[in-house]
Amino acid sequence: MRIKLVLAYDGTTYHGWQIQKKEPTIQQMLEDSLARICNRHIRIHGAGRTDAGVHALGQVAHFDPPPENTGIPWQQALNSLLASSIRIVRYQQVTGSFHARFSARVKHYSYSFWTEKFFVYPQRRNFVWHAGPLNIEAMSAAADHLVGRHDFCSFMNKGTETRDTVRHVWNINFRQGCFPQETVMHIRADGFLKQMARNIAGALVQVGRGKLRPQEMEKILQHRDRSLAPATAPARGLCLEAVEY
Amino acid sequence: MRIKLVLAYDGTTYHGWQIQKKEPTIQQMLEDSLARICNRHIRIHGAGRTDAGVHALGQVAHFDPPPENTGIPWQQALNSLLASSIRIVRYQQVTGSFHARFSARVKHYSYSFWTEKFFVYPQRRNFVWHAGPLNIEAMSAAADHLVGRHDFCSFMNKGTETRDTVRHVWNINFRQGCFPQETVMHIRADGFLKQMARNIAGALVQVGRGKLRPQEMEKILQHRDRSLAPATAPARGLCLEAVEY
Repeated sequence: MRIKLVLAYDGTTYHGWQIQKKEPTIQQMLEDSLARICNRHIRIHGAGRTDAGVHALGQVAHFDPPPENTGIPWQQALNSLLASSIRIVRYQQVTGSFHARFSARVKHYSYSFWTEKFFVYPQRRNFVWHAGPLNIEAMSAAADHLVGRHDFCSFMNKGTETRDTVRHVWNINFRQGCFPQETVMHIRADGFLKQMARNIAGALVQVGRGKLRPQEMEKILQHRDRSLAPATAPARGLCLEAVEY
Repeated sequence: MRIKLVLAYDGTTYHGWQIQKKEPTIQQMLEDSLARICNRHIRIHGAGRTDAGVHALGQVAHFDPPPENTGIPWQQALNSLLASSIRIVRYQQVTGSFHARFSARVKHYSYSFWTEKFFVYPQRRNFVWHAGPLNIEAMSAAADHLVGRHDFCSFMNKGTETRDTVRHVWNINFRQGCFPQETVMHIRADGFLKQMARNIAGALVQVGRGKLRPQEMEKILQHRDRSLAPATAPARGLCLEAVEY
């Protein structure tokens, strides 16, 4: 039996998704809770390895519970054990051919910018990047150069071995956030290289501040050199919104 | 010289506004920062003593800087020293007759409810009460009984000496919050007794859940007995929105 989970988390105090030796991670918290339910260690597989400080509203994970653990209401059982910073949104039984990571077709991230000069809303400090006033029209025009099938190695940070750096970005658009001072970039792609969404956000902010012209995105792509591209945007603005299968 | 500050804070990790012996408080953080700027201790006076875990977007405070500290850009100076959980929104010089607490005419609080059955948005867990589905129309009808000049001692928790428990509630209304699953109660009054806003929120939720009828608010007021009124709502949903002078 295989269970698919959809989960949300406030990533502020976690060292990302993936289990580390000492630091608390989302995967570790889930596996700890699963072990208490199943009385043994169960490996859990996530769709994406979110970085430290990155949030999720629609992360997906799967695990294979032991045969004796059938009929467990996984959402309630896990939520009653997990810290309130992690919530199971829903779960369903899937076939053994489903894999949270390898079956994923499209991932959808959001990146939230606080676009006023002063940041006066400390309740949102862990969820937005205070980027200041931005020319969103220019950013949209720049983003259009990134949509499509491209080699995104200029937008990949080092740290994972990836042979194929070509990804298909389906769309990038900008919307008003829940708070009036926030603008949210939504980006959907068939996959993301290491910190690709944050690197795209960082480059587009340089356009939004008038420091790069929109058409320079083409050049950055063509250079295939991370060191020539603008800096990575902070983790706290990023949220894994959904994974499509 | 007297300076008036408007400030915002995420109250989650603080033990309220007022200085305590050991625990960190907002007033303490402000006085610590002021002392670093002025090289001496300066007392700061707040408009309202928010409880532990209560937030603010428009708390007001005043202090008298030493004569040698003129021309200081207080917003930038304080924000550069304060933790990011506290932000000075603006400041202005006022006359010596201004007092943040005693000159206040009206205070405006908001209380945020998460009104869906399941709470699946951990990023908002410190800022809303997960009250579940609520009949907002019934709550509004109940709130109407509280508007006006009344003795609110049924809605006052013990802990401060208050001779006069009569307050004038100017209005209570309900609006959609920034997030679609949130409903926000706004309440304006000439003053609030200890935990009065949270006690009103707690009582109205009982109406929203169908456990009290709207007209029973009249009875609760008339009883003048806290022990007969519903429980206090959690601190995290409450926010001091503004103080009017």
